[in-house]
Amino acid sequence: MAFKRYIPVESISELTINRLSVYLRCLQQLEHEGGTTISSQELADRFHLNSAQIRKDLAYFGEFGIRGVGYNVTQLREHLVNILGLHEERRVLMVGAGNLGTALSHYSGFNTGGFRIVAILDSDPHKLGKRVPGGLTVESVVDLAQIVKERNGVQAVLNFAPAQLKGHPEVKLKNVDLKINLELLSFFLTHAARMASV
Amino acid sequence: MAFKRYIPVESISELTINRLSVYLRCLQQLEHEGGTTISSQELADRFHLNSAQIRKDLAYFGEFGIRGVGYNVTQLREHLVNILGLHEERRVLMVGAGNLGTALSHYSGFNTGGFRIVAILDSDPHKLGKRVPGGLTVESVVDLAQIVKERNGVQAVLNFAPAQLKGHPEVKLKNVDLKINLELLSFFLTHAARMASV
Repeated sequence: MAFKRYIPVESISELTINRLSVYLRCLQQLEHEGGTTISSQELADRFHLNSAQIRKDLAYFGEFGIRGVGYNVTQLREHLVNILGLHEERRVLMVGAGNLGTALSHYSGFNTGGFRIVAILDSDPHKLGKRVPGGLTVESVVDLAQIVKERNGVQAVLNFAPAQLKGHPEVKLKNVDLKINLELLSFFLTHAARMASV
Repeated sequence: MAFKRYIPVESISELTINRLSVYLRCLQQLEHEGGTTISSQELADRFHLNSAQIRKDLAYFGEFGIRGVGYNVTQLREHLVNILGLHEERRVLMVGAGNLGTALSHYSGFNTGGFRIVAILDSDPHKLGKRVPGGLTVESVVDLAQIVKERNGVQAVLNFAPAQLKGHPEVKLKNVDLKINLELLSFFLTHAARMASV
């Protein structure tokens, strides 16, 4: 495996990592279609990406392409899987068995490609023991400490709640603000309308 | 209102707009706490942002601060609401009454601050007429054209489905890839572990 083990992980932006996920989706699609080799330019043209950005992002992790030929689709897909750490199973614990937590607990995008939701917890006594679609049974959040201990600790938190969570130096926290996407669309609608009416 | 009506909307990145949403959350928090004036540096320190970035992002839209004094919290909050187009109600139509669509249709973050989900549609005949939490009744997706016509057209699509949708030149499309957030955490866990074990 060509990728560098000594990259300073702090110096790589979340946006770079998000783009690696996008490249991975593209390569999976290409592989599915039977593609074997692709240049950064072809990859960019096909999926509306930026070829210089692709080369720059990948260069953090090694030399994957062959000059004048391009990337081997399967090999680059495997490299990205390794870089993103998707070759090992990640057990995910869902806290909150409300509508969104329950829906996400068996959202197909969260139970494939290395991730598996292994428990769903809630503080509401009325929800305890309830079986949610997908097969899990709601456990008590008061058992969180015990469950985490049995499962070798929580290493990262993905927060979908509108509330801000306090971070912990040893736990990676990522807030997902779903409304931000609606606000982005609102911005474009507002200004596109203004542009059109000027 | 100081903001420029002639900004070339295409030249402003989605990331800039996403940061405006973050600034808005921060200002709402400050206003809630009774804050009246804040400098870009104080705003950055308080919410772990970048003060130069704040000034640059806001400069696209006008001059909002007073040199040596800072921003008026309420006024800047109002400017951001206007810039993001959140002063007018946006009616949102949910296509897909599965678990995620249903959960999002009454997700509190989607039914406040200018957005209101006014309909939920599905193609599954078994779901039609079903009342979902929040009070909406599932309508048939075959009525989509009629519903859209009654509501003056669809201007933007926020896609939560793992499938890629084809864009339409007059409709702004934004794909939300929830799994990308898990992959980001996976990356940091993988590399943090590697770093620690070197």
